[in-house]
Formats: sequence, C-alpha cells, structure tokens
Amino acid sequence: MLAGDRLALARLITRVENRGPEIPEIMRAIQPRLGRAHVLGITGPPGAGKSTLVDRLTSHLRAEGAAVGVLAVDPSSPFTGGAVLGDRIRMQAHTLDPEVFIRSMATRGSLGGLAGATGDVLKLMDAFGFPWVLVETVGVGQTELDIVKLADTTVVALVPESGDSVQAMKAGLMEVADIFVVNKADRDGAHVLMAELRFSMHLHYSSSASPKDIDWETPVLATQAVSDVGVTELLAEVKRHRAVLEAGGALEKRRQARRRAELRTLLVERFASEVLGRVEQDRAIARVFDAVADGALDSYSAVSRILSTMLRPP
Amino acid sequence: MLAGDRLALARLITRVENRGPEIPEIMRAIQPRLGRAHVLGITGPPGAGKSTLVDRLTSHLRAEGAAVGVLAVDPSSPFTGGAVLGDRIRMQAHTLDPEVFIRSMATRGSLGGLAGATGDVLKLMDAFGFPWVLVETVGVGQTELDIVKLADTTVVALVPESGDSVQAMKAGLMEVADIFVVNKADRDGAHVLMAELRFSMHLHYSSSASPKDIDWETPVLATQAVSDVGVTELLAEVKRHRAVLEAGGALEKRRQARRRAELRTLLVERFASEVLGRVEQDRAIARVFDAVADGALDSYSAVSRILSTMLRPP
Repeated sequence: MLAGDRLALARLITRVENRGPEIPEIMRAIQPRLGRAHVLGITGPPGAGKSTLVDRLTSHLRAEGAAVGVLAVDPSSPFTGGAVLGDRIRMQAHTLDPEVFIRSMATRGSLGGLAGATGDVLKLMDAFGFPWVLVETVGVGQTELDIVKLADTTVVALVPESGDSVQAMKAGLMEVADIFVVNKADRDGAHVLMAELRFSMHLHYSSSASPKDIDWETPVLATQAVSDVGVTELLAEVKRHRAVLEAGGALEKRRQARRRAELRTLLVERFASEVLGRVEQDRAIARVFDAVADGALDSYSAVSRILSTMLRPP
Repeated sequence: MLAGDRLALARLITRVENRGPEIPEIMRAIQPRLGRAHVLGITGPPGAGKSTLVDRLTSHLRAEGAAVGVLAVDPSSPFTGGAVLGDRIRMQAHTLDPEVFIRSMATRGSLGGLAGATGDVLKLMDAFGFPWVLVETVGVGQTELDIVKLADTTVVALVPESGDSVQAMKAGLMEVADIFVVNKADRDGAHVLMAELRFSMHLHYSSSASPKDIDWETPVLATQAVSDVGVTELLAEVKRHRAVLEAGGALEKRRQARRRAELRTLLVERFASEVLGRVEQDRAIARVFDAVADGALDSYSAVSRILSTMLRPP
C-alpha cells in the first residue's frame, strides 16, 4: 500500500473495519507516514446535500491536480444501508478517476468503536499519500460528532428544511463547525437560516468558556451544490481555515490533543473487551456479575470488587 | 426518601446527577427496594409531541389512582435547554399534584455517563415507590436509544413530518420500539407513515437475527395527543405489553441482561476515570501518552504498554 497500490489500500481498510488482530501491526507500520493529509469533515442532517457537496469539492480539488480520498460513514444500524448506497451513486463521476479513492463504512460495534475504526481508516488514507481526505457522515448524532472531531476542518451543511431535527443538536454543531454551509440556498428560508446561524455563532462565542486557539470566526456560506454554486468559495474558506490552523501551530496542538483522546478511547475499548474475556475465565468475577444480574448486589459495589481484582495498585 | 419524602427524592436525584462520591452508598441503600416500577420509555424526533403524550399518559394513570414519576432527558449540549424548559411548561397541569413527580435532566459527561446517571435516577424513582415511571428523551440519537434501553416498554412517537430525520435512525428505532405511535394523526401523510411502519416492522421481523423472547408484534397506533385522542388505546397497549412481558418471565430476563450491561458500562466508565488519574500520577504512563501525542508511537502499541502496567494478569 505504501508503494501506491490502491487494491492494497482497499484490503487494508477492510481489515481495519473488521477490527481484526493484525490492526496494531498495520498501524505501527504506517505511523511514520502520517500527518500529511488535511482531513476535511462534512456533517449535517440527512437531506442536506452532503454527498453532492463532497462530490463537487472533489471535482474542484481534482481540477487543481490534487488526489482525494473520500470516506462516507454511516453510524446507523447495518439494516439501513440506503444512505451509503446513495452516496456511491452520487460519487459515480469520480469512480473511474484513479486519483480519487471512495469508500463507505457502516456500523461496527459501539462505545467509540466506529469513531476508532474511522480514525484508523483515515490514517490509512493519509499514509497512502492523499493530500486531501474528505470524511462525510450521514447524520448529526453523537457518533457523527465524534467522527467529525477526527477532522482538521469541519464543514456543517444545513438546508432551510433542517429546522427541528437540527434544533436539538445546534449547540453540538456549533462546537464542531469551522464553516457553516447553507446548501440549496435558493429555497425559501435560506436567508433566515443564515442569519440565525450567524446570530447563534455570535452568542456561542460570547458564552463559550473555552478559549480560542486560533483567530477564526466560523463563516456561514451559501451553496447550491447541484449547480456548483458557491463551491469555489467554500473550498477557498476551507483552505483559509487550513492556513490559519497551520500558521499559529494550532494544527499540531489540535492533532496532539486528538491523539491523546484517541489513546484514551482505545484504552477504554480494549479494557471493555478484557472485561468480557475475564467474565468468561474468572469465576470470582462471573459470580459478581451474576449477583448484579439477580438484583442481589448493586453495580457500584460490584465495580469496586471487580476493579480491585483486575487492577494493580497505582 | 424511602419514607416518602419528595424533597429528599429531589435532593438525592441532584446528587446522582452530579455524579458525586456518595452515589455508591445511595445505590447500595436503595437496592432492596428496586424492581417494582414499570418503566415506560418515550422517544422520537423533536416535534413528535412526546411531552404532550407523556402529559396525557400521566393524566390517564392518575385517573386510575396510580402515582407517576416522570423523567425528561436531554442529551444535547447544556447550551440548548429549550426543549427541557418546554417540557416543564407542557407538564404544568401536573405540577401541583403530589402524586406526580417531574424531573428534567440535561447532559452530564459522556461515554455512557448520561445513560448511567439516567439509570440511577430511574432507580431512585422506583425505590421511592412510583408504580409507573415515564422517561422521555428529546431526540432519536444513539444516546437517546441507550436511554430508552433502560425502559421495560418503549414507545416510539413519530409524526408525518418526521420523514428524513427519522429515515437514518429507522433501524435503530425499530429495534427499540415495543409500540409505535403516529401522533398528530389528523395531518396529511399519517396513514402513509403508519402503513410504512407496519411494512418496515414486517421486514424487520423477517430479517432480524435475534430470536424473540416474547410473543409480541409491535403495534402501530394513531394518536392526537393534544386532543387526548388514542391515548386510552395507547395505555391499553402499554399494559398489554407489560402483561406479556411478565407472563413469560421475559421481564426478569430482560432486566437481568440490562443489569449486566449496566455493570459493564459502569466498569468501563470507572476505568476511564482511573486512566485519567494514573496519567497524572504515574510518570511512565504519562510518557507513553506524550509519545502518542507527538506522533512517535502508535496508539495500539501504547495501549499494550499501559494495560500491561495497569492490569493484573488474569
């Protein structure tokens, strides 16, 4: 794969997706090649036209000669599949381009498992050598927000119709958005939504407790992705964000924080599977689980007992 | 609280919400009083009229003389708050009724933290003696689904307008739904949505790998909660589901499985905070974290090193 074999990349992604035992070896081998790609996350509610935006952004980047990796992630249950299939159809214009690599991923496990697998796949694409990697999610739930936190620059796409479904997630979206896009901007309500977003971002800045590490105010852009309107401006803002991130050293600081968070998540994930193994092997731990299942013991007492068995003292 | 003091209940809930160090003691003390309440979960996208449904169900249960505990959970960021406030206003008719206890909860932490806190609050309400506890979520994301998994019976409320936002979560909703309610059923599209849900449930049953533990086909009901239309029928179906669950011993089996899952989640949560503590105390572990942050070491190698330091061999 490191020699540029796309089929090898595709196969490694499958292995990483399947969370097999060879993952540590794979990730160790690609470690020295990481950090060159700029990862662009695109999130937003279903129907916001994210796939079309990704398709148009890919065209613009290709016109500049850049190779592009695209990852569409669907954290909903494996039964759906529809959204991911739709993405593939929309990206058809690029499937014959050898400088564009497109991949879809559906749910694997839980407890940060999908975000973990997504992070590893993004690393494979980075190590392969794509200067741009685009990661798209199908919705705006917590899992999707966890996924876009893997990106260096995050675009949140909305449409005038998003309304209610976005309302509940608004604060979460404002926290992750580096750029807001109001797509299908020719529809009724687009200007109102843009004004609302600008006002909300303004409130968010004034109320936000976390100090800003870069000089950046989240812009609110209008696009009509199907007609390629506003995409040039969007890509320009993405590049401006990248430049601002790189100039002040914030990019590396954010990546460091992300790597620490990733390590914590992986530790917790591995501990969780360790617990499952010990319940099967260790009769004392199994008995504690049984007592909790029968309602004879509360979970907190059980946790103290099990952790004192499993952990070495600090 | 166990003597029926509502103020004591409210104070204990606050302590449990704040995840303070006294929680294990509280949960140990109420353990013998658990398991009498039937927990009814109500989930669905924003705007589906869940709060009104909860309000009407409460009225019907009160008319039968039953005391009711109500918990509204908002897993979105603390900045929102709006939805929870709305719930309180809608439930105003019951706020003077001493046999109805209403509580709202917003986000606390992450990694299953909210589901954990919600589970503990539901236990407090159970131990207090409410025969019915209603738990309502504001949306249909993964966190909300984790929360309704705490319920014995889960009602999924939709409206004809739910459309796109529900589409992405459909499989997840079908997995948790014991009863589907199409609310605002006088609106255009209600009959189409009901037919779609029945068809989807039919497909779900035929494709679902998990064997069913009870003889139950998820009904699809029509309501107009604001006019109290269909609520009698909904409550009757909830009671029928409860009876079916209890008859075959499935209720206890499900609760056992839930307690095991809860213990696993709590173990993982406690391990995660243990890791944070050790990074501060243990210089060797801190150095491994630093190496990962700098990109010098991959996470998988780091996890192996840290776990071999922290865990006793099995």
